[in-house]
Parts: sequence; C-alpha cells; structure tokens
Amino acid sequence: MTARQPGRLYGIGVGPGDPELLTLKALRLMRAASIVAYPAPEQGDSFARTIVSGWLDRGQQEIAIRFPMRPGPPPVEVYDEAVTTIGAALEAGDDVALLCQGDPLVYGSFIGVLSRLADRYPIEIVPGVSSLTAAAAAAGVPLAARNESLMVVPATLDEGELSARLTRVEVGLIVKLGRHLAKVQRVLQHLGMLSDALYVEHATLPDQQVRPLAEIDEAPYFSIAFVRTSQRLGT
Amino acid sequence: MTARQPGRLYGIGVGPGDPELLTLKALRLMRAASIVAYPAPEQGDSFARTIVSGWLDRGQQEIAIRFPMRPGPPPVEVYDEAVTTIGAALEAGDDVALLCQGDPLVYGSFIGVLSRLADRYPIEIVPGVSSLTAAAAAAGVPLAARNESLMVVPATLDEGELSARLTRVEVGLIVKLGRHLAKVQRVLQHLGMLSDALYVEHATLPDQQVRPLAEIDEAPYFSIAFVRTSQRLGT
Repeated sequence: MTARQPGRLYGIGVGPGDPELLTLKALRLMRAASIVAYPAPEQGDSFARTIVSGWLDRGQQEIAIRFPMRPGPPPVEVYDEAVTTIGAALEAGDDVALLCQGDPLVYGSFIGVLSRLADRYPIEIVPGVSSLTAAAAAAGVPLAARNESLMVVPATLDEGELSARLTRVEVGLIVKLGRHLAKVQRVLQHLGMLSDALYVEHATLPDQQVRPLAEIDEAPYFSIAFVRTSQRLGT
Repeated sequence: MTARQPGRLYGIGVGPGDPELLTLKALRLMRAASIVAYPAPEQGDSFARTIVSGWLDRGQQEIAIRFPMRPGPPPVEVYDEAVTTIGAALEAGDDVALLCQGDPLVYGSFIGVLSRLADRYPIEIVPGVSSLTAAAAAAGVPLAARNESLMVVPATLDEGELSARLTRVEVGLIVKLGRHLAKVQRVLQHLGMLSDALYVEHATLPDQQVRPLAEIDEAPYFSIAFVRTSQRLGT
C-alpha cells in the first residue's frame, strides 16, 4: 500500500468585491477543489465567500477560518489552528481552494498560511485584481504612468515614517485607514498633499465611494487614501 | 432629428498574459463592444490581443494602435492619432473596448488615451490582474504583508533616484528593466540587496522565469526585479 498523495493548496485571489472581477482561473480552480476555505470574522459572513457565493453550488465542503476582529495582527494561534485544519485536509488527499479577497499576496491573511505550509505541500497562487488597482479605477486616476514611482504604505505606521515614505514619489496609496484616518490627514496636510488627496471606500461594490480625503471624518479598515504629487498624466 | 448618443469607452485590463487571468467582466464587456482596440508594435502582433484571441470570434471590428518600438515614451502623435480614431468611433455611437495588458492604470498606454478623452466621452475602467501581483505569485513571495511598505519604481530612473527610492521600504519592485538591467544590479549591490533579489520574466506565461537577479545578463523591457529587505513573512 502506497502513501496517499497529498492534496494541493490553491491561494486564490477573488478580487476586490465585484463578483464579476473574478478571473476565469479562480472560478475554475475554486469549483474543482473538494474543499473551499476562506477567512471570516468571529461572527458573521466572510467577505471573500460573499464575493463568490453565486458560484458555490456544488456541495463542496467549506472551512471558515475565524479571525478576531480587533486592531493589530491576528494572534499566532489563529494561524496555527487554520494551518492544522488545512494541513489535515491536504494530508487526506483533498485539494483546498483558499479564497483571498483582492490578491493573495497584497496584505492578505493567506501570507500567514503560505509561510507555514510552503515547505510541506504543493501550493499554487492565483493572482487576483487587487484593491489597489480597483481604487485607481474607481477614482479614474492612474496608479503609475511613465517614469512615476508608486508607494504603498499602511496607515498603521507612525507620523514620521509615513511622512518619510511619502516623499520622493509621484503616487502614494495609504491602505488600512480605519482609526488612523486623522493621523493620515495630518501627515498629508503637513506634506501639502491633503487638498489633492482622494478617499476610496468599497471600490467596485455598489456602495463604492470616491471623495476628497479632507472631507472624510470616519473610515473603515478597508479604505484607501490616494495621493498624486505629480498631476502630469500620460503624454 | 436628435444627435446620436456617443458610445462608451471601456479601458479593459486583460491581465498579465495567461488568458485564464481575464476577469468575467472584461470578457463580457469585450465581447459586447462593437469595436475592440488594442496597442500593437509597428509590425507584428499585439500582446493584449494575443491574450484574448481565443475569445474574439464575433466578427467585431478591430483597431490596432501602432506604437513605435523604441526606448522612451511614444511620440505624442501616436496618441493623437489613436484618440482621433477612437473618438470617431465613439461619435458614431459605437462602444469601444480598449484592451490593456495587465491593469489599465499601471504603466499602461491607456493612460495617454484616458487623459485626452476623459472630458469628452463616458469612460469606464475595468481593473485587471497587474504584472506586479503576477510577479509576486510567480515568485511565491508576498508583495506586502502586515505593516510593510511597497515601492514600485521604473528602472529608467538614474542611479541616485533609484537608490533613494528603494531605501526605507520592505519590498521593492523595479519595472521596465530592459537595457537598464546592469544599472539596477549596481544599485542593488550598493544597497546590499542584490543577493536576495529575484528576477521575474513573462509571469503567468508558459515561458515564465523566476531566477536570482544577480545571474541575469539580459532582460526584456517587460521584466521585473523583486527585492525584499524584510524577510519576516506573515506572523
């Protein structure tokens, strides 16, 4: 009797929110896997699952990986438990499609799973439409043109770091605004960038918002500030 | 007699190369438009068209926008001519799907069209899987995790600018390598980043290559160098 071949883990980007921004490859692999897994809050629905819910009609087994919804990184135990569950499925020979909102490798919880399982199982990563390009499309503003540089920074950094990292670039995206909104507004004001900064929330969803950042006084975690210090676009 | 309603311009990201990385939305809008346009070299096939060629079976009119293949930005006249052609189609009431490899707003020639037509016609931008996330997926390395910052810079900058922009970040992507390869290698060597840098070419295509950047001695224009100064991944 030979050992059973382990299953394959797919890290699948399902895009920023519009179910039509799923790729053909994501759709095919998700529907072919015997197990579909996704991150979810401790209570309530998984955003990644909501995006693809119209396609989950094949009686596949589902695994919700529950993350506590509080500021800061999820505790190590959450990843360890998720990896144990996924690892057991892979050992049993099942392929697992782990759904990731946006792109799996852009601030995704998939990264914590990848770092723990990469040496033990075959893993394929399917890139998706990220919230970064979705925000640019929503705003109708180029993310990077010609010889421009693009800086992506998390709002969680302190004021000095944010300020230092947003100089010397033509385009800056500040992600994970949430409770860091006022700090980001202060930093951009100080850099003379606030008046031109845009705020993008829920890009590609029906309640998408694009507004001047200076007007915003409350922001969810998944929202983005967008600044261009160069207004020269295209040729 | 009322004036005819102008058509709508769609800037459609068709992804980095693998035809399966087309989104459902890109596919639907491309097939619904009466005219499909795409950038192309002066001679030979359009890469954007090649990606979707399996889906172009509906007798749609096609417009190739020819760009001279030489270093530096395309001449202004190329854009002016493209915009005249596309504008005439829109005036005639036709919807135009302008195909863009990767994402339309990430170093795309679409940006030059957008900046000229945004005030005159309704334009919808459909974000796509960009070459940036495709390169990360090919390398199996996170683009940005947790509180990391990501810097995207074109290799066309001079050594001083490249060097200044690649400090203070955890992850750097240097795009448009081409004839700037040796300069980029020198800059990364100087910053102590060359030994860990990866080179990604033709991500998601059958001839995809991921190799140590230090080993490369020739690179096409559409290739990417990928450096992580922080090796801490996930939690």
